[in-house]
Amino acid sequence: MSILVVGSVALDTVKTPYGEIEDALGGAATYFAAAASYFAQVNLVGVVGDDFDHNQIEFLKSRNVDLTGLERQTGKTFRWGGVYSNDMNDRETTFTHLNVFESFSPKIPESYRDSEYIFLANIAPELQLDVLKQVHSPKLVALDTMNFWIEGALPALQEVLGKVDILLINDSEAKQLAGENNLVKAARAIHKMGPKTLIIKKGEHGALLIPNDMNFFVAPAYPLETVFDPTGAGDTFAGGFMGYLARTNSINKESLSQALIAGSAMASLCVEKFSLERLKDLTGAQIHGRVQEFSKMMHFDADGAGFNL
Amino acid sequence: MSILVVGSVALDTVKTPYGEIEDALGGAATYFAAAASYFAQVNLVGVVGDDFDHNQIEFLKSRNVDLTGLERQTGKTFRWGGVYSNDMNDRETTFTHLNVFESFSPKIPESYRDSEYIFLANIAPELQLDVLKQVHSPKLVALDTMNFWIEGALPALQEVLGKVDILLINDSEAKQLAGENNLVKAARAIHKMGPKTLIIKKGEHGALLIPNDMNFFVAPAYPLETVFDPTGAGDTFAGGFMGYLARTNSINKESLSQALIAGSAMASLCVEKFSLERLKDLTGAQIHGRVQEFSKMMHFDADGAGFNL
Repeated sequence: MSILVVGSVALDTVKTPYGEIEDALGGAATYFAAAASYFAQVNLVGVVGDDFDHNQIEFLKSRNVDLTGLERQTGKTFRWGGVYSNDMNDRETTFTHLNVFESFSPKIPESYRDSEYIFLANIAPELQLDVLKQVHSPKLVALDTMNFWIEGALPALQEVLGKVDILLINDSEAKQLAGENNLVKAARAIHKMGPKTLIIKKGEHGALLIPNDMNFFVAPAYPLETVFDPTGAGDTFAGGFMGYLARTNSINKESLSQALIAGSAMASLCVEKFSLERLKDLTGAQIHGRVQEFSKMMHFDADGAGFNL
Repeated sequence: MSILVVGSVALDTVKTPYGEIEDALGGAATYFAAAASYFAQVNLVGVVGDDFDHNQIEFLKSRNVDLTGLERQTGKTFRWGGVYSNDMNDRETTFTHLNVFESFSPKIPESYRDSEYIFLANIAPELQLDVLKQVHSPKLVALDTMNFWIEGALPALQEVLGKVDILLINDSEAKQLAGENNLVKAARAIHKMGPKTLIIKKGEHGALLIPNDMNFFVAPAYPLETVFDPTGAGDTFAGGFMGYLARTNSINKESLSQALIAGSAMASLCVEKFSLERLKDLTGAQIHGRVQEFSKMMHFDADGAGFNL
């Protein structure tokens, strides 16, 4: 099954304790597409400026990502700069130049409109709504958002939430959206807004699947000795997650749980190098190997001898 | 196998968004003993003042906890007061009156000295060393500590760490102890100090087992809709963890992983009521039921169809 992703394509200037890069390929749609491409065919919609070097993104074509929907506009490409703290848990945005992304108005090519799986990356809820008007009858729609839209565009966000199946969101933003301090209560409130399934992203603490029957599934973060560059980890996670669902084309507790691990595995691989470098040439065996390491970290016998109390 | 625990017995005055209690039974040794008692016989060493009402702790005797080592001294019992934030993730200590605990000098009764499993709760490292001099040849020694001793008694802490098998510690304190921002690097450094096994406590984000062969195991926190009182969760976790090991009397990757879940299950039950109330009358079926819920939250098929890449 094919996946449509709509979101940013950017050039990132990033500094971490391990080094720095300037104008490296970034953006939510880019990370998502690269990760998802290991699992399924991806259709990308985004915008770049006339300064964008298409050679940077050429590898995505060889990975079966359709770039028909990547618009080129007069002006500069969206640029973002950030500096990470020594423990990688905080980052400071040094600049955000929206450039051509400021007037981004997603146009879904005719050839994309039958995509079965749709990921609305973190953009204005009005634009996310507009994308949904342009597609035919997707099987699954997932959406990412952030505090900026919760604070500044809540009515539109609530409208689009009513039309999506899955919301991917940070734990603090889930609490903010629901106005609840407790994550379980927040999840119940968000289920009522529309999404039957919540994916809570907790960064270095992993991720949580909360379906509306409240049968939780948790994925830890993979304990890495060296995180080179956490940029894009959330979108890479989303790419692995949606990619897995599109590949199996089944949506149930089992596939959603496996998808959560697929996303976690892809994110843990992504942060091992700068920018999208690690996502360019992974093998299926490397990805499956990481998934098996997650399994080893999580497996225990609930009927172990000592539980006979 | 029997477990020896040495630590505080206290009276806690606690305020949470769900209510408040005054002079309720608390203390690290108390929570630990109550939790561990579901798995094995426990010997407790601690001190209370002449104001302590022994009826408060009488239930531990019926749970096969030996209180021979609970000293009664002239003066007041250790009292602690705390107020939790609305999201339960922060707490402010309102007072700490050490009282008779200030001059605590653990005396291990003769009948306790052959205990096979030893838990040195969070007390001064000098006292932890003194306990180890009084016991015969324990099979396993585990130790808890905190930033206060890392900052104020590092040489003694390093000495006692050289003599223990397992260190239980918060993630931020592990980083502080090792002087490393990355948890995996911090674990490697702490393994070199002595403990072959690290248990990293991450509160609402669960716990992590890091053996010195770096074959991690992770336990999530159980997602609770209502946390009544998080006080004692860490010591309850330790009680379930050590209790499980003592019950099975085997120490390997499998039993350590199951013990991590036993600890997590006991902690998740403890916080459902104030003070030790929930730990007084659990059934084996309730504990096993919670363990099975952890299993459901963590189980996935690493050879699921979509991983065939």
